This record gives sequence, structure tokens and C-alpha cells, in this order.
Amino acid sequence: MTRKSSIQFIRGGVTAPKGYLAAGVTAGIKYSGRKDLALIFSAPSAKAAAVYTTNVVKAAPVLVNMKRTPSNSVRAILANSGCANACTGTGGVRDALSTANFTAKKLGIREKQVLVFSTGAIGPRLPMAKVQKGILEAVLRLSRSGSAAAALAIKTTDIQTKETAVEISIQGKKVRMGAIAKGSGMIDPTMATMLAFITTDATAPISYLQKTLRQAVAYSFNRITVDNEQSTNDSALLLANGASGAPSIRPGTYGAKIFQNALTEVCVRLAKMIARDGEGATKLMEVRVMGARSESDAARIAKRVAGSLLVKAAVHGGDPNMGRIIAAVGTVGIPVRPDRIDVAVGNVPMARGGRLLLSNEKRAGKEMKKDSITFTIRLGMGRAAATAWGCDLSAEYVRINADYRT
Amino acid sequence: MTRKSSIQFIRGGVTAPKGYLAAGVTAGIKYSGRKDLALIFSAPSAKAAAVYTTNVVKAAPVLVNMKRTPSNSVRAILANSGCANACTGTGGVRDALSTANFTAKKLGIREKQVLVFSTGAIGPRLPMAKVQKGILEAVLRLSRSGSAAAALAIKTTDIQTKETAVEISIQGKKVRMGAIAKGSGMIDPTMATMLAFITTDATAPISYLQKTLRQAVAYSFNRITVDNEQSTNDSALLLANGASGAPSIRPGTYGAKIFQNALTEVCVRLAKMIARDGEGATKLMEVRVMGARSESDAARIAKRVAGSLLVKAAVHGGDPNMGRIIAAVGTVGIPVRPDRIDVAVGNVPMARGGRLLLSNEKRAGKEMKKDSITFTIRLGMGRAAATAWGCDLSAEYVRINADYRT
Repeated sequence: MTRKSSIQFIRGGVTAPKGYLAAGVTAGIKYSGRKDLALIFSAPSAKAAAVYTTNVVKAAPVLVNMKRTPSNSVRAILANSGCANACTGTGGVRDALSTANFTAKKLGIREKQVLVFSTGAIGPRLPMAKVQKGILEAVLRLSRSGSAAAALAIKTTDIQTKETAVEISIQGKKVRMGAIAKGSGMIDPTMATMLAFITTDATAPISYLQKTLRQAVAYSFNRITVDNEQSTNDSALLLANGASGAPSIRPGTYGAKIFQNALTEVCVRLAKMIARDGEGATKLMEVRVMGARSESDAARIAKRVAGSLLVKAAVHGGDPNMGRIIAAVGTVGIPVRPDRIDVAVGNVPMARGGRLLLSNEKRAGKEMKKDSITFTIRLGMGRAAATAWGCDLSAEYVRINADYRT
Repeated sequence: MTRKSSIQFIRGGVTAPKGYLAAGVTAGIKYSGRKDLALIFSAPSAKAAAVYTTNVVKAAPVLVNMKRTPSNSVRAILANSGCANACTGTGGVRDALSTANFTAKKLGIREKQVLVFSTGAIGPRLPMAKVQKGILEAVLRLSRSGSAAAALAIKTTDIQTKETAVEISIQGKKVRMGAIAKGSGMIDPTMATMLAFITTDATAPISYLQKTLRQAVAYSFNRITVDNEQSTNDSALLLANGASGAPSIRPGTYGAKIFQNALTEVCVRLAKMIARDGEGATKLMEVRVMGARSESDAARIAKRVAGSLLVKAAVHGGDPNMGRIIAAVGTVGIPVRPDRIDVAVGNVPMARGGRLLLSNEKRAGKEMKKDSITFTIRLGMGRAAATAWGCDLSAEYVRINADYRT
């Protein structure tokens, strides 16, 4: 699906493409004193495509942003951690609007050119005085090397910061794409994503950007699961400011194909970072389903297996308990033929025709001890395939979520 | 929905009704040397209604039983723990048939009058020599007081044995109903159940028994969730041998209503026992959803909340994190109005009109520390209601399932 040959991974994040500045500061929203406010600024006006949570219960900033994107003119992204501004009623929406307004004034841009994002605990209102103080500082600290600080400032229970960037060539012109993301808990299979901000100095028609982002999200953030939970705040945003000077991408051309592949690669890379950094996770799990009747069947089965608590616990313990995988496949509601199912972990066959190959258990156990584990499930029903990513379930997940706020 | 007034809970389990004998023995299928083979025998021929797992991947004994029920003549139930006889191919089906055949010969009944059930690890074949030795012993030990031993012999990771019995009156004649069940992991919201064996000395047309069992299961076993996992072996079985001498129950009569209420009560009681005894569980969670457009909407939302990992972790930690409940409500795909959602824990309101009442947090925290926790969620959309049961998620769940077989 993706052609990596013409995509080169480079250092950096959202400030790797031309024309973007970023900052991450401590506004004091988090008790811990860690960075909690990120600002991304595009010097030229950027087109903005976005995908949001499908949760019926949406956070205030999501409600605000949904009215503003897709957009042909966005200049700034303000994102805070430590408070989700969700389940906060009309007051929460006022806070989100006022935050955007304040940011716009300080940057000398129009309010509609600001998008606002929040992540953290559900319920509390934004501490507006702290947020405004933070905005003032963030505006002063905007820089070409600010991506790492911004990536740090959107973390909640994440351990790793998530940043990536690529360089591609559109009609002979170098174009870059950079991204930061956060996500560790409330990461779910059937929805948009967590927070992911992707910048590019390419440009393209907004309808193409929106469609391309949606496709990339479908193959990446919608294919990961940490805990089968859907956040109220999940958003993936793509900004395209054209600062590279490359010609606008025309849909259907080779350049458009390269761009789409690059965007998908960037999103898949971030998605895998999120899965591996799932709350309490110690391992990355990749589930490849082949031989399905349709890609959608394959994706649903792959995500079901990656999200199964029993499979996740088995992965944590390094226990090659393949029966749990076959049992999980059967629960999706998609007609499969149990007597055709083959399962392998790494290169070790563990089930053939629905029967477990218990004699391979020792070899499979070794594969299961690795810190990246790949299951391949062949259904023997058709030719479609899909991959999903997840992580193991550890006692640490419980500890984190039994007293997240205390 | 249920009328308890005419239902009296009594001591005992499957041998409380007349005409039933039971035994539980150690066949050596489990490494631990614990009881692992249960036999229930009905002296008069019994009608048998059954509900099985909806998992596409079904264990061998389920495939065998599905051909034999509903039935007008069942005499014996043989159930082993320690081996699920699932993902064992055609050989597994042969083992199940041969087990039924051997049991029938030793009891002097027809093979078709025997139903076979298995629970335990997926993959391994049944150790047939041990099983046959166990059957011989179980036949010798059948007794009127054997229910507790049978309940013990079907346990896997269960800590508590699950037994209950009731007495009702059908047209002036005393009738009893008794049951044993097992279930602790792989307990899921959208399917039949775990193993539950219910006996009664009443009798009724088989079509009535089958329909009544299906309804009772819908309100009980289908309303619990421990880990969102569907087993390959889940079965609920109702045997009715008529030994009470009460007239056959006629559908639509007052007696039929009493019988149905009693069966639902018995199933709900077992279901709550299973939820409370979920793997690693320390608390029972009850989720009541009211004000839904339909009962099916209410049930889906109740089960989603009860199965949410983040809610389960919050319950474990005694953390009144109501935002997670509202977020979970939003993910079901049922249109709700977030600004109408009220949530309470016990008698303490925690959210009103979708906004969290953070000032009640301390009182709510006290409720959350109890060992039975009830959430009431009012949607404000209609008049339908439903209840679901679950348990907390503890580090112990991970420990149990990270090395179940080692």
C-alpha cells in the first residue's frame, strides 16, 4: 500500500517543514509542574484538514474546532494537557472560544485562524488565568526548534514523546512533513484518534487534504487499540502552508501519490509509537490478518485480537496461548471457517486449520518473549488483508487508571 | 419485571429439586489435583432447553450438544474443567462423542440422553483414559447431596462455587429449581453465558422451556461482563424432569409467570455471583441505565459502561471519575444528548446535564470505596431501563491471565 522508496525519514517534528514555529511551556494546569501548553504557529496561512473523535460526547474544544475545519486559513494551534475541558457544559465551550480569542490577539491573527485542543482529566474547567499566562509565554518562546517542547507539553500519561518527520519530492521540489502526537490511554479501535498534529510545507486543495488525512487515519490511528476506550477529545490535524514553494499538489498525479504515502507513513509511525507507549505497556503487538473476504473484515478482526484483554495479558506474560487468538477471531460477528484458520507468532506456526500445534509451543514461547510481537492470522476466506497494532496489558495499566488523578 | 413474593430461596443447588443426583470427582485433568469432573443425573427422563455461545469458534462439546437440544429426553450431564476441548479439530469432536457414549453405557441410558460440557484451557485434547476413569468414579458417587461437589468440579479460575435454589408453587404444588454455574474469565456482554446448569422438578412443553430459558439468559448472563471476552464453550442448560408431580406448566398461565420469574431470579443470582467472582475482582459493579429510548439501547449502554476498562480501573481504585462513565456512554453509537445525562453513584449525584458535579466528589469517593457499587445513569431520552453487572479490573486479573497455564 505504501511506497517507502521515495520517502525519507528525517529528524524533527512539526517544525521540520518550512514556515512553522512551535513552543511548549508550563502554564501550571498540571499539578506536577511539567510542561502543559503547546503552541504551533504557521507563518504563512495554512490549509487545515482534521478528523475528530466519533464519541457522541465531545469535548468543548472539539465542538469549537469542528466548526472551523476544514479551513483554507489556519495560523495557530493551541493545545493544553492536564485538563480535557470535556463534560464542562456551555461554560467549557466559552472557555475554549476565549482561549482561541486570546491567542489570536496575542499573535495578531483572526480568532477563526486558531484551533484549540485539550487533553487530560474529564470534568474540571480550564484554569483560565493560568492558560492566558501560558499563552503569553508560549508566544514569546515560539521557535524553529520548538517541536520537541510542544511534543512534551501535550503528554499526559505518555512516557515517550512522539515526534516524526519525512522529506519527499513533489515535481522535483523538496517538501517536508512533520508531526507530534500524544496518546497512551483511552486509545480505541473504532474512532478517529488521540491528538496528532501534522505540518507540511507542501500545499494542495483543501478537499484533497481532508480526504487524504481521512485515509491515512483509517490505516493508522484507527488501527490501534490500547484499551478499547474512545476519548472525548481525539483529533488529528494536518496543516499545509505551502512554504516549500512546491507547486500545489494535484489529485491523481504521481506527486499526490507520494504525498499520500508519506502522510500514511507518518501516521502509521505515530500510531505505532502510541501503541507501544500504551499505559502500562511493555510490548508492541502487531496483528496481521490475511485471507479475509474484505479489508474491512480483516481490519475488524485484527483490531479485535489486538484489543482482546486475554490476548493482551498473554502477550504480557509471554504465554503462547493461541487458543485465545482463535476465540477472539470468532467473536467479531464475521463468518469465518474455524477449520481454515492458521495462526503464527513471528515465523512459528501455532495453529493450522483451527487446531493448535502444541508441539511448537516452546518455540512460540521464545517469540512471545520479544518486545515486539507479530501475529499472523490467515483466514482462508479470500484475498484481503489488514494490520492492527496494540500492546500488552500489565498490572501497571491498572495502577495508572485506578488513581489517575490522585 | 420479576415478582419475588412467590419465590423462596432455599439451600442447595442442582439436587434441591426432586429426582436429581450429582457428583464431583478428581479425574486428574487438572494438574492441581482438584475436582475436575461433574456428573448430574436425572432419575426420570428430563426435558432439556439450552443456550450456547454465539462465538463462531465453538468448542467440540458445544457442537455435539447443539445437535441434541432442545430435547424431550435428557438423563445426564457430564462436565469437565481443566480442558476446554476447543480448537481440537475433528479429533476433539470424536472425544466428546466418545465421552457421552461411555457415560451412557455406565449409566445404562442412551447416548443421545447425555450432554457433555468442557471448560478450561483451549487447545489440548481431553485425556480420555483419565476422563473414563473419572466417569466410573462419578457414577458410583452420584448422590442427592452431590450438588456442591459438582459445583466445585466445574470451577476453573473461580474462587467461589456458585450454587442457588428456589421453591415456588405451581397450582398449589411445590416445585423447586436449582442451579450451579462457573465463570470468572472470558465473561462477555454480547453472548450466551459461561456454564450454568439449572434443574427443576417441574415440567412444561419443551418449546416453552427453551423460550423461557432464552429470556432469562437475556436478563442475566447476557447482562454481565468481566473482560469483554466470549468463550468458545459457554452454555446454559435447563433440565425439567417433572418429578415434583406438579401439572405441566401451560404457557400464558399464572403458574408460567411464576416459573419464568423464578428462572430469571435464579439466573440473575448466578450472573451476579459470576460478576463478583470475576478474575481478580474485588468489587461488584451494578450499572442501571434509565430514560433510554428502548430497553435494548439501555442494555447496550449499561454493558458498555460495566465493561469499560477505565471505569473498571476507577472502581478498583475507588476513584469517583464520572467523566469516564459519560465518555463510555458516548461510544456505544446510540444517539444520546450529552447535556441531558445525569449520573449518580449510590445516592450521590455526580453529573447533571452532562456537567460533572465536582463538589460532590468526596461523598462519591466514599460510595466508590464500598464493595458493591451501583451507578445510575439517566439519559433523559425516553422511558426504557436496563441493568448490567460487572466488576473492577485489578492487577490480579493481569497476573491470572499472563500465565494462566503455567
